[in-house]
Amino acid sequence: MHAYRTHTCGELRKSHVGETVKLSGWLHRRRDHGGVMFIDLRDHYGLTQVVFNPGSPGFGTVERLRAESVITLEGKVVARDDSLVNPNLATGEIEVVAGEVTVQSEAAELPLPVFGEPDYPEEIRLKHRYLDLRRETLHKNMILRSQVIASLRRRMLEQGFTEYQTPILTASSPEGARDFLVPSRIHPGEFYALPQAPQQFKQLLMVSGFDRYFQIAPCFRDEDARADRSPGEFYQLDIEMSFVTQEDVFGAIEPVMRGVFDEFANWEGKGRRVPEGPFPRIPYAEAMAKYGSDKPDLRNPIELADVSDFFEDDSKTGFGIFAKIIAGGGRVIAIPAPKAAAEKSRKFFDELDKWAKKEMQAPGLGYARLKEADGGGVDSQDPVLKNFEPAHLAALLEKLGLGAGDGIFFSAGKKGDAYKLAGAARTKIGEELELIEDGVFRLCWIVDFPMYEWDEENKKIDFSHNPFSMPQGGMDALMAANTDEKLLELKAYQYDIVCNGVELSSGAIRNHSPELMLKAFELAGYGADVVETEFGGMLNAFRYGAPPHGGIAPGVDRIVMLLADAENIRDVTLFPMNQQARDLMMGAPSPVDERQLKELNIRMAPQLKS
Amino acid sequence: MHAYRTHTCGELRKSHVGETVKLSGWLHRRRDHGGVMFIDLRDHYGLTQVVFNPGSPGFGTVERLRAESVITLEGKVVARDDSLVNPNLATGEIEVVAGEVTVQSEAAELPLPVFGEPDYPEEIRLKHRYLDLRRETLHKNMILRSQVIASLRRRMLEQGFTEYQTPILTASSPEGARDFLVPSRIHPGEFYALPQAPQQFKQLLMVSGFDRYFQIAPCFRDEDARADRSPGEFYQLDIEMSFVTQEDVFGAIEPVMRGVFDEFANWEGKGRRVPEGPFPRIPYAEAMAKYGSDKPDLRNPIELADVSDFFEDDSKTGFGIFAKIIAGGGRVIAIPAPKAAAEKSRKFFDELDKWAKKEMQAPGLGYARLKEADGGGVDSQDPVLKNFEPAHLAALLEKLGLGAGDGIFFSAGKKGDAYKLAGAARTKIGEELELIEDGVFRLCWIVDFPMYEWDEENKKIDFSHNPFSMPQGGMDALMAANTDEKLLELKAYQYDIVCNGVELSSGAIRNHSPELMLKAFELAGYGADVVETEFGGMLNAFRYGAPPHGGIAPGVDRIVMLLADAENIRDVTLFPMNQQARDLMMGAPSPVDERQLKELNIRMAPQLKS
Repeated sequence: MHAYRTHTCGELRKSHVGETVKLSGWLHRRRDHGGVMFIDLRDHYGLTQVVFNPGSPGFGTVERLRAESVITLEGKVVARDDSLVNPNLATGEIEVVAGEVTVQSEAAELPLPVFGEPDYPEEIRLKHRYLDLRRETLHKNMILRSQVIASLRRRMLEQGFTEYQTPILTASSPEGARDFLVPSRIHPGEFYALPQAPQQFKQLLMVSGFDRYFQIAPCFRDEDARADRSPGEFYQLDIEMSFVTQEDVFGAIEPVMRGVFDEFANWEGKGRRVPEGPFPRIPYAEAMAKYGSDKPDLRNPIELADVSDFFEDDSKTGFGIFAKIIAGGGRVIAIPAPKAAAEKSRKFFDELDKWAKKEMQAPGLGYARLKEADGGGVDSQDPVLKNFEPAHLAALLEKLGLGAGDGIFFSAGKKGDAYKLAGAARTKIGEELELIEDGVFRLCWIVDFPMYEWDEENKKIDFSHNPFSMPQGGMDALMAANTDEKLLELKAYQYDIVCNGVELSSGAIRNHSPELMLKAFELAGYGADVVETEFGGMLNAFRYGAPPHGGIAPGVDRIVMLLADAENIRDVTLFPMNQQARDLMMGAPSPVDERQLKELNIRMAPQLKS
Repeated sequence: MHAYRTHTCGELRKSHVGETVKLSGWLHRRRDHGGVMFIDLRDHYGLTQVVFNPGSPGFGTVERLRAESVITLEGKVVARDDSLVNPNLATGEIEVVAGEVTVQSEAAELPLPVFGEPDYPEEIRLKHRYLDLRRETLHKNMILRSQVIASLRRRMLEQGFTEYQTPILTASSPEGARDFLVPSRIHPGEFYALPQAPQQFKQLLMVSGFDRYFQIAPCFRDEDARADRSPGEFYQLDIEMSFVTQEDVFGAIEPVMRGVFDEFANWEGKGRRVPEGPFPRIPYAEAMAKYGSDKPDLRNPIELADVSDFFEDDSKTGFGIFAKIIAGGGRVIAIPAPKAAAEKSRKFFDELDKWAKKEMQAPGLGYARLKEADGGGVDSQDPVLKNFEPAHLAALLEKLGLGAGDGIFFSAGKKGDAYKLAGAARTKIGEELELIEDGVFRLCWIVDFPMYEWDEENKKIDFSHNPFSMPQGGMDALMAANTDEKLLELKAYQYDIVCNGVELSSGAIRNHSPELMLKAFELAGYGADVVETEFGGMLNAFRYGAPPHGGIAPGVDRIVMLLADAENIRDVTLFPMNQQARDLMMGAPSPVDERQLKELNIRMAPQLKS
């Protein structure tokens, strides 16, 4: 018989009854029932109930062991009485009556309980991550993560992509987030940087004549932690393709994303689904107008409406505040709140106004509650609408599709500010009214991002997202854009993929033409010298025959968080750092020897500690 | 029709004749044949021959373009005349008669030719790696690398393993090679380190209750470059399993390794093979005795023999030098050189003696050429054997299986030195006599490594390989080893996998018991305090229930090098650094802003530049 096991703890079924087996695992739980001792033995694969009869050889040994000790036992598989079958356990039809027991590893007193996974301070959990990871939820999440990544890989290979590894010790990049730096031992005063993304490498791979590249790529940004961002490293499904249009990228990636969400929609019996049909493609301008966001949660049925026209003339509204804002170039955006007037008290509306002031630093969120008017029809006694001419009010409500019992919120101000507040309010109202559709992954593409935007601070045109995206219309479009207004209308072949309000990735068809790139930079006020200095490497590569190419890079951690229903990225990462970028288990970062610093030609600058 | 292509350049066959197609790719080569212009259009997938008739719309455009420009063309597929079919080209049955041409990217004068891949200085190749990678050999090697890694992954999944990602920003490790360090911005004076291998993480994963872990893991060592080692990063197939014996590890990994070598043995028609049957398992002591190496090339039929017994008594040999060495505790090792006396001149033997002195810093390599004796039988006129008693000589030759026409080399000295020279001589002699078997991958396991060795420098017992391996016989064996001699006889569950003389990996069943580990260190003269300080993290983790576990980590780059027949790791790496750890294409490492250093709380120490 094998030294440790004939079966795993998740393997035994009724068909094994009568067999003598050997199992190894952790002592998950022990119960005494009038002299008979039951334990749940746990390994990676599952749990098996083991019975120790009084006087059985292992009884005394197991009785004195602490939970989480590791044992090996021999025993006989017996069927459970029908009444004792546990349908929630894969091995629930049987139990093992134990004979000999060998202790493989005796557990000391635990700093953190495993069984039952009670709440415990995060510091302790991270410090003893090897215990935390034994807990059922985390254990399952990590396996999900592995399965999701394996599924992404399999689907990418099926789509004819090839995985390549790009360097991790590379050059500092001139833009983007903060780099992690690695001092060079051989070249004093010089540093490698860890890649924020393999962006340049994947484009250079296309220039190198490869095609349909992907990589589950580790990426590094020295930025502070957020719930959906680890301090340090994260993974993305990095993708690039040659000789493609935006349509081709969507055609290649959409089946992969749909496939992986579909495959794990019912993970742990969660019964979620991905709606049929192609992912909606929403132009950026439409997304901003309808949802006040370029990462809309399409599970939320609320759609914003620009109702400025209705408030322009205050002789029809009796509401001068909005008219004045509009006269000053601002906008009034309505956020419908279906049934809110009927179902919610005034407090609900006032709280949202407070939220707007406090959390959103906005002047406020106007509102109106709609009710049956005494003489028929609909009216509102709240200030915004109460003095509306009846026909004007009817027209407004028709536009918004609202009636008695519904509510309306109003966000007014400069266009950008008004939409920002309206978008946030849409989310909050949707959640509070419980309008967010349950059990569904709604993915969409946001397309037609503007190439340029107005930089208010420096009073000039600048790139709005990515200077390296291909402008729609190419050189002709750039040449024709001879006013700021026309420049602001230029769109790029740049796109996002969004799921349930979470941006999974940006992507773009790249600008592979040095002339076109220099022109695009010139229009944003950057001279050729700046471009050559900062991005000369890429530009030069493009001068020796570059294919049209494009790609995308969906965030793996975010996909797993969505599928695992996890609130925090630490819940889908094996060995995460804490919020302060410390690995409490391994003790990283840590001081190093003076000798090591000398070898690296650096020294500490403690005067900067403050 | 698609903007760029209806087919790839490797796709068109006779069945496409008559179709109008669109192709995109690089202008690989252009030839003029009496007014008709032929080009080879190249993309990731292959080459297609395109014909431009005089006056065709694209003729003038393509005529003036430099090689490696990127074009899109429309054309009609026509069959080639039978006499012009190119059987070496997948598209060799057809050609495309070109119509319209669009230039996607015009190539400037190339710093490095692609077509024909002539030799070129490595500096230029690495600086313009995106051109170098377009060359046929490198392009194929990189695809092979990707396919090998995908195959390893697939095979590991088939064996029930799960891939997990372990951190890349982690803690400096107290032993092993030099770490790459990453200064922490948030914690002044502290550093992360890049992992030399995920050794601790994979063991902690087992302690965390996972099982059958693998990862195609990036590893980082700040060591100088060698032909088979990149300066910086490399990849290993990192593996760990719980509740396993050494046999189980072999049983899980052998099919993966056999499978991948088998799958790619005939890559590019190389017609290699992997012999049937389980990989030989060779105890370390036997490997040293037979091959003078723990990474023997089993394609070399030469086996060493310890012939000290034959030389002990110089009254039978008339050769006092060896007798004296043996009397002083040394050994004489014979290296048979079949047919060398018949086929090689005296110079061959003398050159090997010179090589031993010069390259191996040895006192020399004795030799004897065997010939038919005048009176029948075999004798030798070379000093080592010429005075042997005939019966004694016959016994020696019988032991070695040698006769007239063969040669023998002798390595004599202290045991370690004698075997070291003998092992190297075995390789050299095998190569020069062309005895190395062609077209075969001979894999083997080296097992039963000694736990301890004699540290000559410090005159004490120390760990011979890995202090964390499980000693064979466990605590009982450690307790019974009460003399240095007995300690030196202790073996560990430690093993190597070797292919054609290349060590692919070490592995071990780990010591998962804190008591056993403290005892093992004690026997090597390390106190518990030292162990707790240096390795406290692991030790503590083992105190909360650790499963018996073991693993291995075959080097991915080395596997690919073997399969690609590559001499240098740079030939199987996409974007390698040069020997001086510089990425000439990206310009890494490089100086960084003073501001960045300040943020990282470090400054340069230029006085150390010397």
